[in-house]
Amino acid sequence: MKEKNISLAVIRRLPKYHRYLKEMLDNDIKRISSKELSKVIGFTASQIRQDLNNFGGFGQQGYGYNVEDLYEEIGKILGLTRDYNVIIVGAGNLGQALANYSSFGRLGFKLKAMFDINPKIVGLTIKDIQVLDMDTFETFVNENNVEIVYICTNRDGAQDVADRISKTNVKAIWNFAPVDLKVPEDVVVENVHLIDNLLTLSYFLKEN
Amino acid sequence: MKEKNISLAVIRRLPKYHRYLKEMLDNDIKRISSKELSKVIGFTASQIRQDLNNFGGFGQQGYGYNVEDLYEEIGKILGLTRDYNVIIVGAGNLGQALANYSSFGRLGFKLKAMFDINPKIVGLTIKDIQVLDMDTFETFVNENNVEIVYICTNRDGAQDVADRISKTNVKAIWNFAPVDLKVPEDVVVENVHLIDNLLTLSYFLKEN
Repeated sequence: MKEKNISLAVIRRLPKYHRYLKEMLDNDIKRISSKELSKVIGFTASQIRQDLNNFGGFGQQGYGYNVEDLYEEIGKILGLTRDYNVIIVGAGNLGQALANYSSFGRLGFKLKAMFDINPKIVGLTIKDIQVLDMDTFETFVNENNVEIVYICTNRDGAQDVADRISKTNVKAIWNFAPVDLKVPEDVVVENVHLIDNLLTLSYFLKEN
Repeated sequence: MKEKNISLAVIRRLPKYHRYLKEMLDNDIKRISSKELSKVIGFTASQIRQDLNNFGGFGQQGYGYNVEDLYEEIGKILGLTRDYNVIIVGAGNLGQALANYSSFGRLGFKLKAMFDINPKIVGLTIKDIQVLDMDTFETFVNENNVEIVYICTNRDGAQDVADRISKTNVKAIWNFAPVDLKVPEDVVVENVHLIDNLLTLSYFLKEN
């Protein structure tokens, strides 16, 4: 597969393909043309053909795409060929909400523990997941081969967590705190900046 | 102000400017050059000048930007000149997490109620916010001039909520359910598709 030089815009569309293909699989749809796919997913058929050509192209002229093959190939590109050990730092409402998303686990993101500094929360077990003290963070991460940390702390605590992560083998952070984290170059960060999203909504509401 | 034909990419950068300018204000920084702004925010200085020129340009040669003016102007563009009445549908962990974000309220997004269908949750008061039954949804929305709904239901319930919203005067949905909602053209939707975001992270982790 020629996976090089794929634009960020294409990468960011792939999870959406993955999501829709899963839905089709669940509905027993075996193959689909770029035109039909276009109708459900909302990208143009030509956009779809272009996007998928980035990865060698899975379609066959006159047949369309094999839904299962395409789903699996896109899954491979997205790194879904194996499980990832995950922990959550910040076991408040948001952390607990993420712990409850069973779909993450089904995709291979295996939640191993939650961490907090609040003595009222540390020691609890939430949906079979223990809330541990941040004192044991580095030990746990190293002993359990943790690869991804979801940061669900408040803004002030997030950079400190990122600094501690940077000294471990964890190379991926999913950050929900409203701050842009400073991390070493080999650590990837995906941000969910809720306020940025909400302000985009109010912009569109105003313009509407 | 010439606000027409601004690209979506620019719009999506504005909340980040807004966030950083707020931080500067809090730190008593009164003015800043595009070069300095570039250092903290991570966009190039030329990108920043281009972005801000879209709105008439606030900078002065040799002086830079007045932080407070720029913060307020961008706030205006984002629709932050007045309050919005907001409700949350789905009072589970995620809904409760959003209800707890005091920063939304400070920006003018005033949470008026939460709604749920679970009899165990309906009737509760969470941080001064009542959880109401979905039976009273339309009445409440109309009587309280609700303008924005945050959808925090599961995937299966979300479209039904969107359909009910579409029959009211609400014109903005902030959707956290992992589904692309079908709504009338005059309703704007901002999605937080967590799984899409997580799969982008695993892609980058794999590529790293």
